[in-house]
Amino acid sequence: MQPATPVKPTLAITMGDPLGIGPEIVVKALADPALQRRARFMIFGMNEQLAYAADRLEIEPFWWRVQHDTEALESWRNHQLLVLDYDEYSLLGTPRRVPPGPTREGGQASYQFVEDAIAASKLPADDPRHVQAIVTAPISKEAWHLAGKRWPGHTELLARRYQAKRSAMMFVAPQLRVVLATIHLPLMDLRNILTIGKIFEPIDLGNQACLDMGLKRPRIAVCGLNPHASENGLFGDEEERLITPAIELARAQGILAEGPFPADTIFNAAVAGRYDLVVAMYHDQGLIPVKLLAWDSAVNTTLGLPLVRTSPDHGTAFDIAGKGQVNERSLRAAIDLALDMTSARLRREADANPQNRS
Amino acid sequence: MQPATPVKPTLAITMGDPLGIGPEIVVKALADPALQRRARFMIFGMNEQLAYAADRLEIEPFWWRVQHDTEALESWRNHQLLVLDYDEYSLLGTPRRVPPGPTREGGQASYQFVEDAIAASKLPADDPRHVQAIVTAPISKEAWHLAGKRWPGHTELLARRYQAKRSAMMFVAPQLRVVLATIHLPLMDLRNILTIGKIFEPIDLGNQACLDMGLKRPRIAVCGLNPHASENGLFGDEEERLITPAIELARAQGILAEGPFPADTIFNAAVAGRYDLVVAMYHDQGLIPVKLLAWDSAVNTTLGLPLVRTSPDHGTAFDIAGKGQVNERSLRAAIDLALDMTSARLRREADANPQNRS
Repeated sequence: MQPATPVKPTLAITMGDPLGIGPEIVVKALADPALQRRARFMIFGMNEQLAYAADRLEIEPFWWRVQHDTEALESWRNHQLLVLDYDEYSLLGTPRRVPPGPTREGGQASYQFVEDAIAASKLPADDPRHVQAIVTAPISKEAWHLAGKRWPGHTELLARRYQAKRSAMMFVAPQLRVVLATIHLPLMDLRNILTIGKIFEPIDLGNQACLDMGLKRPRIAVCGLNPHASENGLFGDEEERLITPAIELARAQGILAEGPFPADTIFNAAVAGRYDLVVAMYHDQGLIPVKLLAWDSAVNTTLGLPLVRTSPDHGTAFDIAGKGQVNERSLRAAIDLALDMTSARLRREADANPQNRS
Repeated sequence: MQPATPVKPTLAITMGDPLGIGPEIVVKALADPALQRRARFMIFGMNEQLAYAADRLEIEPFWWRVQHDTEALESWRNHQLLVLDYDEYSLLGTPRRVPPGPTREGGQASYQFVEDAIAASKLPADDPRHVQAIVTAPISKEAWHLAGKRWPGHTELLARRYQAKRSAMMFVAPQLRVVLATIHLPLMDLRNILTIGKIFEPIDLGNQACLDMGLKRPRIAVCGLNPHASENGLFGDEEERLITPAIELARAQGILAEGPFPADTIFNAAVAGRYDLVVAMYHDQGLIPVKLLAWDSAVNTTLGLPLVRTSPDHGTAFDIAGKGQVNERSLRAAIDLALDMTSARLRREADANPQNRS
């Protein structure tokens, strides 16, 4: 038997807000020839902004431009690194003439990139425009609102478009992985929102994601909700009522979950290497440590979708956009993670369906 | 006019649980002659445990022992570093024979040390047994419970004994100062507990403490309660209803308070030096960053008392007690902070009452 050919995935990269740092970080990250060899890339964006960014960064343009809605598919077949150009949005003007900031046009364009990347992922696998994973550069929520797109962010839009029954937001930093049980909610609403299922989901999805990241037996620490994880019910009962049953459910399925642990000390244990993943009950509980340890270098990945989606954990950075001072490491980490996780998924699928091997 | 004589304060140091690491860290911290010159010290503890700790640490005993309840006050007058010995508790046996862990006797002894230090602080200023500040070594809450003392910790006991109308818990780490608006409560009870006053108090007390720490114009960042500080009411209204009015109240009094800020990023700004103090709304919001940045080297100080009280931010560490492996830096930092803050208070009082100067 021949060893399976290494699978080379196709990644969609959405350029994010045209007036933010998206064009620069996309160009800077993808300019690496070693990265270019690892996958096919389709950049959903604007050729003019990318060319301008390359010029600022003194990088020779390295992509093949196609009009995003052309019917001529030869380019898709023949090129490994494509920019799907949305030049109808260049009414934005040249980057030099529009000051960076949230605009209706920027919101409209960056929203369309994401919608179309999602659509491309739903094309048949043998369509040359098909993508297997999506990496999103930062959008401006304010710009989306100006364009009438009232989504809190990428995560919620993706969950809806893929009709994901379960989804979770995970952050991957060099020192720490964190998955959130809840995201953009009033903190006091947790009393009605938290359920055993709502806590089991991120444990289960986080465990699967760790497997996709190459961990053999992920060790998962689950946070308590209350101070000192309530000290056996002294301050609150969510640990006993909800969190412990969710952990037991996970353990019954063979997941190495432990807790509930006091949230003010468990992150140290994870950083020290005793756990591969921490499950946080709410936004700030998980993001305070991620931001402190990895500021804007963490990767955000949406779990529970039929495909891998990652993004850098920083915003549009309008204040430094267009100045050639950007740091592309977080986007590069997001691309690397998307490639690793997608390859793992493709291998898993191939193992599950050996008859499909050529 | 003569320059004011530098004021030399008297510090009470409570030894903490006799079976924990308290005796060792107390001996190790106070063995420094430079520290001994800065203040008078009264250690509320057990001579036997301290002598045993000194022996393990190969430190020559450097204190003068008096029975804690003796009526002969000459020793108090003539010595600068006293152990007030509670040898009635030596029914605990020699340290070698009792395995470290929570015991009723240990709880009783460590509780009595604190009560008596409080009582000593209430003696007239010219009584040789009077103390001006209290530094507490770690107690075991479980041991206190075994001894029938149902206090969540030192902070609550001290607030009660001094009938403090307002009090707050503050943590001082090398990189970060944090004060908590609420402490040991079920997280979901915040909806009933948080008020404008409850948020103003830690801002005001924290500002005063920063002044006592020598900061001229403390810059204070106040956390939001909800994700992204609610993004203008998108997720919760506590920012608008409670936190912003509390900040405005503080600013009207000349305090440099700002916020509410998203809690997942404001600690980075404080660590970067843009703020001197962060006001957190609840336990984990403030302690996750403190523990991540300073693990067990932070100092805990109780604000709102008529005197300065500090303690190391770690526990009894029964697992390493009696082995001579302790790290006294956090206790030393607690002593240094207590001395600095007490000197600042004494100077402030002297300035306010110049006629009292000799």
